[in-house]
Amino acid sequence: MSEVVTHPGRPGAVGATQPEPTAPFLRACRGLSTPYTPIWFMRQAGRYMEEYRAIRAHHSILEVIRTPELAAEVTLQPIDRFHFDAAIIFADILPPLIGMGLKLDFVKGEGPLIENPLTSTYDIDLLATPPAQETLAPTLDAIRLVVAELSSCNIPLIGFAGAPFTLASYAIEGGSSRSYIKAKTLMYSEPAAWKRLMLKLVTVQADYLLAQAKAGVSALQIFDSWAGSALSQQDYIRFVQPYNRMLFEMVQRAGLPVINFSTGTASYISDVAAGGGDVIGVDWRMPLGWYWQQIGLDKPIQGNLDPVTLLAPWRELKVQIDTVLREAAGRPGHIFNLGHGIFPNTPVENVQRVVDYVHEQTA
Amino acid sequence: MSEVVTHPGRPGAVGATQPEPTAPFLRACRGLSTPYTPIWFMRQAGRYMEEYRAIRAHHSILEVIRTPELAAEVTLQPIDRFHFDAAIIFADILPPLIGMGLKLDFVKGEGPLIENPLTSTYDIDLLATPPAQETLAPTLDAIRLVVAELSSCNIPLIGFAGAPFTLASYAIEGGSSRSYIKAKTLMYSEPAAWKRLMLKLVTVQADYLLAQAKAGVSALQIFDSWAGSALSQQDYIRFVQPYNRMLFEMVQRAGLPVINFSTGTASYISDVAAGGGDVIGVDWRMPLGWYWQQIGLDKPIQGNLDPVTLLAPWRELKVQIDTVLREAAGRPGHIFNLGHGIFPNTPVENVQRVVDYVHEQTA
Repeated sequence: MSEVVTHPGRPGAVGATQPEPTAPFLRACRGLSTPYTPIWFMRQAGRYMEEYRAIRAHHSILEVIRTPELAAEVTLQPIDRFHFDAAIIFADILPPLIGMGLKLDFVKGEGPLIENPLTSTYDIDLLATPPAQETLAPTLDAIRLVVAELSSCNIPLIGFAGAPFTLASYAIEGGSSRSYIKAKTLMYSEPAAWKRLMLKLVTVQADYLLAQAKAGVSALQIFDSWAGSALSQQDYIRFVQPYNRMLFEMVQRAGLPVINFSTGTASYISDVAAGGGDVIGVDWRMPLGWYWQQIGLDKPIQGNLDPVTLLAPWRELKVQIDTVLREAAGRPGHIFNLGHGIFPNTPVENVQRVVDYVHEQTA
Repeated sequence: MSEVVTHPGRPGAVGATQPEPTAPFLRACRGLSTPYTPIWFMRQAGRYMEEYRAIRAHHSILEVIRTPELAAEVTLQPIDRFHFDAAIIFADILPPLIGMGLKLDFVKGEGPLIENPLTSTYDIDLLATPPAQETLAPTLDAIRLVVAELSSCNIPLIGFAGAPFTLASYAIEGGSSRSYIKAKTLMYSEPAAWKRLMLKLVTVQADYLLAQAKAGVSALQIFDSWAGSALSQQDYIRFVQPYNRMLFEMVQRAGLPVINFSTGTASYISDVAAGGGDVIGVDWRMPLGWYWQQIGLDKPIQGNLDPVTLLAPWRELKVQIDTVLREAAGRPGHIFNLGHGIFPNTPVENVQRVVDYVHEQTA
């Protein structure tokens, strides 16, 4: 055991006995007791911080992602400012699509757009599956920089990627969508092509996540942000769950805790959890305790403050935080987070207040 | 009893013994046996029909709504073409906001927009609550025209209105929204003003629905299209359910069956059902039988084919219809419908095929 004890939570060989990590976030990921409830926020490096806006004033999102020094700097901004218990590498779920052959750009006010979305089964067959080391090297380099910076303070770094459905629907719709008509129509009309697309995405994403593990992250999160808005339970089970299961199984090889995050899946969260993951990340739709009952109390859980409540007066915000903490009931295996990404117009002082309050109340 | 028997399902006095209706849709609304499962589609009068597009080529949505002859014609188009078991008056949930003082327009490609959305508690206090007879007379006139047309064929006409949360969030956001940040921030920050706004909307909507009943509709549907996307279960119970309960109670006076429709509320559908309604309209997210268990098998249910499946090949569409019918298990009290409005690019022949197939399979 002793050879890995110097960096708790770093990947060990498959099946190797792992030492108990000391960082509260990593302990919670394994359901171990923690001195207080660890907390981090999805999109914690973002526009609500003036330090971030200062960098974005001169660089596009893709420039920041593709410049390891900038990505590392932005990743560390919320760590320097707040007492978050984990950092998450600054990146986006969509860049792996670029390496596959899609022309992605982030258009101001419209979000990410794909110039050449998939419109036929032929387009799917043309998609490449290059290794992450070739196409996503700047993110892997940024991870190395951040890990070096964080090595002295016992703050773990999280790597992440999108789940196959979320990427597939983006690749087909070409942008954000309300009804996912094109993606679902392809799924229903061309089930064999759908399968080929999902398998290619599993290949690319597994390789990307394992490369992030190799570069030094201490945990991984897989975002299936869209499956829940798009699919019924029966379609989720038919068209998504088998591929998520493959991806989680392949990523297990890293020996790191993996968080399975989705939104809009409350009514079939147990099917989502059955797809894999050591920790289930849940949205804000239902009480945390309800989710925990659905997925099993032995499974660590991450969530689930509604990010809109960060814009509310403290009186109301406190009610909402207290509800999450009451629902968690002090059980080990709770990572406090939002139920979705933080909004750009969030007052920065509310973020500080929530982090400190959660630490105080649970210490 | 005999004085109302000539038009089954027309409103009687409160507490009066009502005759059993003969129209399958109205029988299902009361949980009575039907010769086959009645079917209608939300937004069945819409852009997927060329007859509708021909009228819309010369008239805006608001013009059609405000011209009783046009609204009546459009309402009857799907009845003339398909064997639907109910008509629904052609209107929109938002026009009541115009009478309250909001400047609403339907902008091509963007949907409805409000020029002067509510931005302060003062704006809320300025909102008027005029009677529907003054501000929504064309819709009431259109109802009278359609009822006269349908009187010979025993096809009931449904009236409808939006639930308070859906209207409030539109009035505050000024258009469609992904996160409802403004509406929720007002709700959290100014709970007293939120209450005043919701009470005004309950007043206006109850009056509108009762006026539609008086004009001759045979059933009513209340659409809470947005509460589920916007709110957690606890916020729904605190900020929405009390007002829905008031509205359903006030509308009961009409003596008509009332359908309570919402989307994105699967995980707390029993709280939605507790708000009121004789029939619960459910979305496509979970199997119909699951919903029916949640709301109680003695309660009639409406749903729940995913409207995107109407764009799929018949092979897949049939699987999805069969699932809904298998889940309904032939119990009385099932009204077949989509789980959300039909999409404009739906092939018209698929609509015909679904209607006929459901009738054949359940006869």
